[in-house]
Amino acid sequence: MSDPSATGVCLVIGAGDGLGGAIAKAFARTGLTVCVTRRARHLDQLEALCAEIRAEGGTAHAFGVDARSEEETAALFDRIEREIGPIAVTVFNIGANVRFGIRETTSRVFHKVWEMACFAGFLAGREAARVMAPRGSGTILFTGATGSLRGGAGFAAFAAAKHGLRAIAQSMARELGPEGVHVAHVVCDGAIDGVFLRSRVEDVAPLLAEDSVLKPADAAEAFVWLHQKPRSSWTHELDLRPWQERF
Amino acid sequence: MSDPSATGVCLVIGAGDGLGGAIAKAFARTGLTVCVTRRARHLDQLEALCAEIRAEGGTAHAFGVDARSEEETAALFDRIEREIGPIAVTVFNIGANVRFGIRETTSRVFHKVWEMACFAGFLAGREAARVMAPRGSGTILFTGATGSLRGGAGFAAFAAAKHGLRAIAQSMARELGPEGVHVAHVVCDGAIDGVFLRSRVEDVAPLLAEDSVLKPADAAEAFVWLHQKPRSSWTHELDLRPWQERF
Amino acid sequence: MSDPSATGVCLVIGAGDGLGGAIAKAFARTGLTVCVTRRARHLDQLEALCAEIRAEGGTAHAFGVDARSEEETAALFDRIEREIGPIAVTVFNIGANVRFGIRETTSRVFHKVWEMACFAGFLAGREAARVMAPRGSGTILFTGATGSLRGGAGFAAFAAAKHGLRAIAQSMARELGPEGVHVAHVVCDGAIDGVFLRSRVEDVAPLLAEDSVLKPADAAEAFVWLHQKPRSSWTHELDLRPWQERF
Amino acid sequence: MSDPSATGVCLVIGAGDGLGGAIAKAFARTGLTVCVTRRARHLDQLEALCAEIRAEGGTAHAFGVDARSEEETAALFDRIEREIGPIAVTVFNIGANVRFGIRETTSRVFHKVWEMACFAGFLAGREAARVMAPRGSGTILFTGATGSLRGGAGFAAFAAAKHGLRAIAQSMARELGPEGVHVAHVVCDGAIDGVFLRSRVEDVAPLLAEDSVLKPADAAEAFVWLHQKPRSSWTHELDLRPWQERF
Repeated sequence: MSDPSATGVCLVIGAGDGLGGAIAKAFARTGLTVCVTRRARHLDQLEALCAEIRAEGGTAHAFGVDARSEEETAALFDRIEREIGPIAVTVFNIGANVRFGIRETTSRVFHKVWEMACFAGFLAGREAARVMAPRGSGTILFTGATGSLRGGAGFAAFAAAKHGLRAIAQSMARELGPEGVHVAHVVCDGAIDGVFLRSRVEDVAPLLAEDSVLKPADAAEAFVWLHQKPRSSWTHELDLRPWQERF
Repeated sequence: MSDPSATGVCLVIGAGDGLGGAIAKAFARTGLTVCVTRRARHLDQLEALCAEIRAEGGTAHAFGVDARSEEETAALFDRIEREIGPIAVTVFNIGANVRFGIRETTSRVFHKVWEMACFAGFLAGREAARVMAPRGSGTILFTGATGSLRGGAGFAAFAAAKHGLRAIAQSMARELGPEGVHVAHVVCDGAIDGVFLRSRVEDVAPLLAEDSVLKPADAAEAFVWLHQKPRSSWTHELDLRPWQERF
Repeated sequence: MSDPSATGVCLVIGAGDGLGGAIAKAFARTGLTVCVTRRARHLDQLEALCAEIRAEGGTAHAFGVDARSEEETAALFDRIEREIGPIAVTVFNIGANVRFGIRETTSRVFHKVWEMACFAGFLAGREAARVMAPRGSGTILFTGATGSLRGGAGFAAFAAAKHGLRAIAQSMARELGPEGVHVAHVVCDGAIDGVFLRSRVEDVAPLLAEDSVLKPADAAEAFVWLHQKPRSSWTHELDLRPWQERF
Repeated sequence: MSDPSATGVCLVIGAGDGLGGAIAKAFARTGLTVCVTRRARHLDQLEALCAEIRAEGGTAHAFGVDARSEEETAALFDRIEREIGPIAVTVFNIGANVRFGIRETTSRVFHKVWEMACFAGFLAGREAARVMAPRGSGTILFTGATGSLRGGAGFAAFAAAKHGLRAIAQSMARELGPEGVHVAHVVCDGAIDGVFLRSRVEDVAPLLAEDSVLKPADAAEAFVWLHQKPRSSWTHELDLRPWQERF
């Protein structure tokens, strides 16, 4: 096939929320084989996502993986490359938005947020680099947030992890770009429709009707677009934000 | 027609270089009527661009306009709205890259660079806001550069103008977003293939072959993409950069 | 005298508000001869400032100058160098804070704000570079604002000018630093006690009592500090902000 | 005593290099009692630093503490408050500059750099907030680096940790400022004279003679200055950079 962005595997690490699932579906529609991961205890929800993708004619595989585990992450990449196909895109999409005053932030919380939102991103990025750089192609995408750019009051743990993840994305973009691997960071600024939002807002229908929250399918399209960009014109950072969002 | 981004006029102010022309062609291919402007003395080159667009089946109009003139700019918007159709997209694409040590920067140069790269952008943005905001829709795109983000040694005049243009884009994005008008700023970081580059590099063929310069057609695609984004997921700033570019 | 920062002339361009006057007083107390400028029609107020400085034992000269005029600005530097002494510090302190929706921003306002807050800063910086760089020493300080960093809704004209001024400061810092001239940009984020504030707030006493506005004398101290920094440890940008200010 | 910044304890966490020691000495000269920490195995070097401070007439205490340990850090703050005096300033000054390509960055290195440069900073900041906020006063200072602002190629681990530390500083500044606690982040951009530099450069004398490296005593002065600032005019971020440094 002539367009290299139309083949291979898209691995979405952290397909637990609306956005991760939508990214998987969007890549499946472009013809890529999709692999999605989540903690093993939620594997049934991942299987439901894969079933949806297959019902649309796509190919999808679910993996119960602890993304904070170096062993499990390395094994995941090895297994996909060996059994399914070359990984063309890796999307790291694990967040960990918590809010605590600095004095109420326990070291356990601080550590856990970092492990999920930053350390796991490092592991995913490094393993992706390991398989992609020798091939001189591939795309590595990181999902960011407002906290990636600004340390707001009450968000020390979250912003520290997200700033760290953005630093990893920048560093990898500079190191791997000239090797043919495209690394980009997508700042999602605004609430995303999903389980988290629906647990906090009684009725999301009006928000969806007036497009005042990020719709996963719309946001996912930007990830596909980044992967398909020609290398004369890569994008390394962009923001996604509903039209009425204050910023 | 159901998709509002597929109709109306795309106005490209500053279609003098490779990028502006490529943006016009790219929008014409999506079905929009294209209006392109340049200083009157280069109108023949604009007509050649329009002929190319028409040969592809598109609709295009050329206007010789001094974008630094409030009167000419206001008259341009009025005439297009009255005679051609509602302006759905405005792209401001005038640069003015010059390099002088601070002591060698004359006030004439400083003023002229600002007039072309910043003041004309303000005029274009304001006139676009004037026609788009009452309709509650439309897209306004500004072309930025490395100098939009960083004041490098020897670039005081250029960086002052480009920083100013980015400030206009940010301010307008915040003001007009909630009114339904999408404003975005595209940072082109790297040389763009065009008249300017070809006047400085003896042979661009190797650069094009290895994609180490921004190819206008590839870069233009980002402008179309921005216009077509659904309002639940707008992007307000992104960068375009060849894969090997240092940054 | 052994400390080079303790001699010479401090030129404050735009000593019309609380901050400019306070900067002049603060430098006068360190032993520098102070030259202050304002539009000619306000020369009487400048003379009052000079009288205060002389009453404290300092040396001060007032100049009615239109900082937007290249001729007047160049003549000012020449005259001070010839008649008073070598300029060791130049502070550019002209603001022009206005707020208008983009559609209500006339080109006259946009141009005027740029002329005062950006173009005049370029002239001051260039003329200072002209006299300082050959001596391999000197300090050039620019007063910034929140609008230097962020284009807020309704602030297109102001933010464009202040972003431009910051770009000039950055560019000059990079160019002139290795020549021994220290260039820095000071972001004042928060209301400053002065004529402008007092025209808008009925009673500033409570604000002063709880330090919730920038006190000119406190803010001025940062400008003196920057000038006195040893060259192994220069600072090129800092912010000044009252303790309760949201940011 | 009338000036609150002239009394109390200055705690420097990470006084192992040139900068930390210089900060301790500089605060001791202003009359503050100085407490310095380092890993226990280097306690003898800390005692030498304290002896120097005492020889100058200052008061100093050395503590062998693992700053990555929540228990040891909490105990340190408790003990100083109980036995020595109220902590007026806390300086977190632990770096961990390493350079590895992303594929050569082990999870052990990534974790260790984060623990030292980010997690330990969180612990120090939180414990300082715990004792300072109830008093409505105090200063918390974090030492940053170029990697705090930019993720350079080969610096994923370092930049992730330093970006995280800056996010903590920003978040704490916004949360604690209105409670009377001043939080600031100091970006040291350039080599600092110290053990690390001297292990890499054969002869630092020329660098020192021409001020092309950060001299610890000069840089330290900025930390004292930040602590002494009046609350109407706090500074939350500044850079320190030798005059010839490229940036």
